[in-house]
Amino acid sequence: MLTTTDPRSGVSAATTIEPTPTASVSVIAEAAAAAAASLSWRGRAFRADLLDAMGTAVERARTELVAVADAETGLGPVRLNGELSRSAFQFRLFAAAVREGSYVEAAIDHAADTPLGPQPDVRRMLVPIGPVAVFGSSNFPFAFSVLGGDVASAIAAGCPVVAKAHGSHPRTSQLSFETLAAACRTAGAPAGTVGIVYGQQAGTELVKHPAIRAVGFTGSLGAAEALQAAIGTRDEPIPFFGELSSINPLIVTPGAAAARPAEIAAGLFTSYTGSAGQLCTKPGIAFVPDGEAGDALVAELATRTTAADPGILLNARIRSSFDDIADRLRGAGAEPLARAAEPAADGGFTVPPTLLETTAVAMTAEVAEECFGPLLVVARYADLGEVTAAVGRIPRSLTATVHGEPTETDVVADLFEALAPFAGRLVHNGYPTGVRVSWAQQHGGPWPATNSQHTSVGVTAVRRWLRPLAWQNAPEAALPRELRDADAGIPRRIDGVLTLPV
Amino acid sequence: MLTTTDPRSGVSAATTIEPTPTASVSVIAEAAAAAAASLSWRGRAFRADLLDAMGTAVERARTELVAVADAETGLGPVRLNGELSRSAFQFRLFAAAVREGSYVEAAIDHAADTPLGPQPDVRRMLVPIGPVAVFGSSNFPFAFSVLGGDVASAIAAGCPVVAKAHGSHPRTSQLSFETLAAACRTAGAPAGTVGIVYGQQAGTELVKHPAIRAVGFTGSLGAAEALQAAIGTRDEPIPFFGELSSINPLIVTPGAAAARPAEIAAGLFTSYTGSAGQLCTKPGIAFVPDGEAGDALVAELATRTTAADPGILLNARIRSSFDDIADRLRGAGAEPLARAAEPAADGGFTVPPTLLETTAVAMTAEVAEECFGPLLVVARYADLGEVTAAVGRIPRSLTATVHGEPTETDVVADLFEALAPFAGRLVHNGYPTGVRVSWAQQHGGPWPATNSQHTSVGVTAVRRWLRPLAWQNAPEAALPRELRDADAGIPRRIDGVLTLPV
Repeated sequence: MLTTTDPRSGVSAATTIEPTPTASVSVIAEAAAAAAASLSWRGRAFRADLLDAMGTAVERARTELVAVADAETGLGPVRLNGELSRSAFQFRLFAAAVREGSYVEAAIDHAADTPLGPQPDVRRMLVPIGPVAVFGSSNFPFAFSVLGGDVASAIAAGCPVVAKAHGSHPRTSQLSFETLAAACRTAGAPAGTVGIVYGQQAGTELVKHPAIRAVGFTGSLGAAEALQAAIGTRDEPIPFFGELSSINPLIVTPGAAAARPAEIAAGLFTSYTGSAGQLCTKPGIAFVPDGEAGDALVAELATRTTAADPGILLNARIRSSFDDIADRLRGAGAEPLARAAEPAADGGFTVPPTLLETTAVAMTAEVAEECFGPLLVVARYADLGEVTAAVGRIPRSLTATVHGEPTETDVVADLFEALAPFAGRLVHNGYPTGVRVSWAQQHGGPWPATNSQHTSVGVTAVRRWLRPLAWQNAPEAALPRELRDADAGIPRRIDGVLTLPV
Repeated sequence: MLTTTDPRSGVSAATTIEPTPTASVSVIAEAAAAAAASLSWRGRAFRADLLDAMGTAVERARTELVAVADAETGLGPVRLNGELSRSAFQFRLFAAAVREGSYVEAAIDHAADTPLGPQPDVRRMLVPIGPVAVFGSSNFPFAFSVLGGDVASAIAAGCPVVAKAHGSHPRTSQLSFETLAAACRTAGAPAGTVGIVYGQQAGTELVKHPAIRAVGFTGSLGAAEALQAAIGTRDEPIPFFGELSSINPLIVTPGAAAARPAEIAAGLFTSYTGSAGQLCTKPGIAFVPDGEAGDALVAELATRTTAADPGILLNARIRSSFDDIADRLRGAGAEPLARAAEPAADGGFTVPPTLLETTAVAMTAEVAEECFGPLLVVARYADLGEVTAAVGRIPRSLTATVHGEPTETDVVADLFEALAPFAGRLVHNGYPTGVRVSWAQQHGGPWPATNSQHTSVGVTAVRRWLRPLAWQNAPEAALPRELRDADAGIPRRIDGVLTLPV
């Protein structure tokens, strides 16, 4: 039996959920493979309706889902209701993207005389890669788990999904799966469109199964390496899209420190302590100028930190890592700056929000180790050259943030240019937490933030689950509807010219 | 000193080219890194002009390039002139794609009130990934080498390139590099936009260098594995795009065999013996129906094969592999069917075009081993179910081809559906060799044809060298021109709606 644990008390209880045995993993993967062809011939309109139905089903199960997720994560109903809304929104956004149809990148090159002689008719679009295994994260029981963006984007692509239930929220995973499976039944989707496996061993067997054609993962670098090793034993390699770790540097310019010290301190405090600091986009290092304005900002940040409530971490492993990493950071030269009161020793996975301090000049990769939880390293600097040099010495990130003033436009532009190689999203006068789910979003950075040239949030996340296929001189009946000559109701590139539907 | 060998005689001669020492590899990679930022700020219009200039430079050097390549490859002036035209065309096609600008996937989501509350302005486009190492192939001294599609697409993306000269055509590689470097100088491109290294050791050091951010490769699975292992020793992993191996099944339906036996035999003969069978898209297996029509087709194919001239292979390794693989295929059950006269024992790398025979029912992965050279396995079948089952037992390919009649549209459509999971391009009533270079082309299949979800031929090959970057609430001056509010002259997705330039 799997257990479920209340992070507020640390008390575990048995569930009715059994780890999925090897034979069942195989049956579930084969069911996904059988669903793949069936999902494909049902076409885009069917899949869009299915995604909308999933969004509606998630909203309908809101009360029950939030209650069980709160018991398993301690994230609280406000955050969890927001996250559930985001999950439902994601299903609907992908439904819209599937209807719009650009994502298939349909292109038709008619037979033509060219500078290289007569050439055949060639048509190309992206097609589903096949069944996808999804490994969700502990910190987003909805939006990066069974109801999350990897699942929604894979269904959008036309790929059946087998989710691996997260050990930190098995009951939430189960209820999420049942919610989606019911939506599939109602919509008439093939059995096997969504599946779930429980337990670490089942997850390993899942990624080794020949029917699985790609893997989506959100979690730690260590867990990713273990899965990657399992994938490495396959006869046929498959793509592994991992969102892994991120330190998310935030830079306060001298102008911004002078103009908005209290406002930035307040925003930064909220950003690094929200969801108990357990967000992949949490700012982990803040570069603050030397001098009075910087001192005021840091003092305000310290005051807020000292007065802060404890954060509830998601599980015992994250709880013990928090102390271990804080120790390592201090050992690497980060000095204690401020710390909230120690939480009551009630068995819960609670920790005090913590500020450490160093300098940009002393910044190293060791001081930039990601700490999952409410911990922020403040790095003071004399000039911005020290900051960009420091960013070049630490691991690359999902995001980099600059607070600057309207009088510093050139400074901000130069900083963005210097930071661009080190991040996937550049934020100005905001905070990297709170990721907008939209068409233009990019959530994926250079290694080790992710291992991918694609995003895991936003519409283009669908590209991970697609592969291109071309047809040469194919008869009309052998072409997918999107590539036939008649207007297909989607944007297409025809003889090199991007053409909108009539 | 590196040597160069005439495949017609097998005679080697010293060149003036030294293997690139370790220290020089580092200097060349750093020069590429230095060029990256500089190329980037020059923008798309500059790069398009540079690509056009490269195309022109290649045409101007035609006589010299074809002569040196012919001496090193034995491919002959007709083929090489055609390939050089293709190289020049590729540079110009990418120039057009860079000007058109869709490839950056520009998207703007303005700040908005959404179902998830107020959301910030987010803008996204694809940016160059950084310096790219390119390993060309022996069989395309121009179009998949230093003047090839990987180089052209990387420059189009805005990435400097360091090519590794192919050991089979070092002088062609050197002259190609000099041609491109001169075009760069004339166009005012930064030094380091193109570089070259010589020798296997230098190639290994190149992919391990931190400045290199992606690798393009066309060659054997074994060579790819060696490079992948070298890449695996890096601190930061980088994408490796490999075009590796392909057997390219071709299916003749009963109707097509009855209607066009001689025509198909002639086309198939040309396709499997062209360029001495050294094309990644060479049909390696032809499924032909049992019975009289099939017999006639096979007899004609055998007659043409028996009368054929010898093929000149590219180097001693490919020459000895040809015999080894033919032996293995016979050991795996493929019977001799027809063979041209043995070439004169003049030291050249010549081989007789060779037909082997088996059945679809007996088809195994061993009989489907790719043989680089003029060798084709004919597999006879009783019904098409045997063929689709056989395709499921052999490695996946770049292409799959069906010859069918207009009366068999349903048969062709069903075959295409069955073949789709096993190929990247489906060809109807044609031959897989002779790959059109165009917007809709797809040259990349499921593993082991390539290891990628992208193509290496055609405009979308550029996607391999790009990564997405998002800007949140950025001031206008900190945004690239493509993402500013004013019409940028390129297609963009604005608030979710694909919008063509005014």
